Amino acid sequence: MKGKLYGLGIGPGDPELLTLKAYRLLRLVAVVCVPKSKQENASVALDIVRPHLLEGQKVIEVVMPMHRDRQLLQDHWQQAARQVLVHLHQGQDVAFLTLGDPLFFSTYAYLLRAVVELDPGVQAETVPGITSVNAAAARLNLPLAEGTEGLAVLPHLEDMAELDTVLKTFPNVVLMKAARYSEEIVKYLEDHGLAECATLVSRCGQKGEQVVRDVRILKDTPVDYFSLMLIRQGGKS
Amino acid sequence: MKGKLYGLGIGPGDPELLTLKAYRLLRLVAVVCVPKSKQENASVALDIVRPHLLEGQKVIEVVMPMHRDRQLLQDHWQQAARQVLVHLHQGQDVAFLTLGDPLFFSTYAYLLRAVVELDPGVQAETVPGITSVNAAAARLNLPLAEGTEGLAVLPHLEDMAELDTVLKTFPNVVLMKAARYSEEIVKYLEDHGLAECATLVSRCGQKGEQVVRDVRILKDTPVDYFSLMLIRQGGKS
Repeated sequence: MKGKLYGLGIGPGDPELLTLKAYRLLRLVAVVCVPKSKQENASVALDIVRPHLLEGQKVIEVVMPMHRDRQLLQDHWQQAARQVLVHLHQGQDVAFLTLGDPLFFSTYAYLLRAVVELDPGVQAETVPGITSVNAAAARLNLPLAEGTEGLAVLPHLEDMAELDTVLKTFPNVVLMKAARYSEEIVKYLEDHGLAECATLVSRCGQKGEQVVRDVRILKDTPVDYFSLMLIRQGGKS
Repeated sequence: MKGKLYGLGIGPGDPELLTLKAYRLLRLVAVVCVPKSKQENASVALDIVRPHLLEGQKVIEVVMPMHRDRQLLQDHWQQAARQVLVHLHQGQDVAFLTLGDPLFFSTYAYLLRAVVELDPGVQAETVPGITSVNAAAARLNLPLAEGTEGLAVLPHLEDMAELDTVLKTFPNVVLMKAARYSEEIVKYLEDHGLAECATLVSRCGQKGEQVVRDVRILKDTPVDYFSLMLIRQGGKS
């Protein structure tokens, strides 16, 4: 009998933010598969779950590079899917780990698709995880959205015109990977009287976590790549 | 010494979707406080964590009605905050339970605000939880968003013009409490060739869970109040 593929969300960084279900399944499977962006890098996901692993569990790493070349990415996902399928076809259950949630801006979606394309008979179960967005809000004791308010999450900003459009429709906006254009964002927020409504959290729950409550300092301060900006037009409460 | 207030996200319904942290704190506190919408109702949150509770833990219920009258709501939150403060001032830690995540469309934000207003010296820690949005995506093995795509979450739709605006900016949209206007939404989606891109999940992970993959049937079918519609304009994969 074929093994089962589990997509396990392991949360944003704190090993205690795994769910009971992810924890149970993590220790049940024969094979734990962790993505890494480069062969030579350590896997952040593996570091997080390491305290939970049992002796004798096999850990395999698959390289999922960050790249804009779609064909190159496809090749890597196919390669990773084949690595996973070898174990499933041997009857071993495989847990593929994802930082945060597996279906919220994660490479797991690509892997799952590639696995099912290669073998439509594979059984897959996804276990949701705590996203960095929810973790950052908790860290700040700050609501992401309340009542009838909408919430927009943007992993990428084309330009400040896009931010302008979104802030006109949504009282609450989360900007992921905000570091890339933090200077421009802060300038926009200042010009629109919104600097007081924004907070930045970098590497929430991980080593090197940083909270910036006055985002104006970001004009002169380098910002970590893994940063979220929470904008709450109703104010910071 | 004063007790500490914990806002615990207990996930969407499955008792296994609590985090290890919420589980640990739930069993550590002297008092567990659960919200309910009406005095005579059972608390869904309490049902979810019941298997985890220890003997001797005190459970208190606070009524947090769903109501549009802001002053009436304020009075209820103040009342709930006072109930919580009695225990904190006796040195007891209190865990306030929230379905899903405490800072994502939850009454905990109001309670936290009321507690801090009455006693600014209270220490509060929020523990994030799995949202019904992430749980629904996992249930469907369907990405909420990928790559550079934005995601919009709407707990309330004013009218179909609002949906139209949002779908022009966001490839991925989650409509919470979609039941209220499901007929109109389906008609809109059909008219715009998007019916194939939508899925509905009701009571995800709770008793009576329902998944509707062909939303066209919703024109003739009553829909549970606790329903989410996921619209993924890129298609269902």
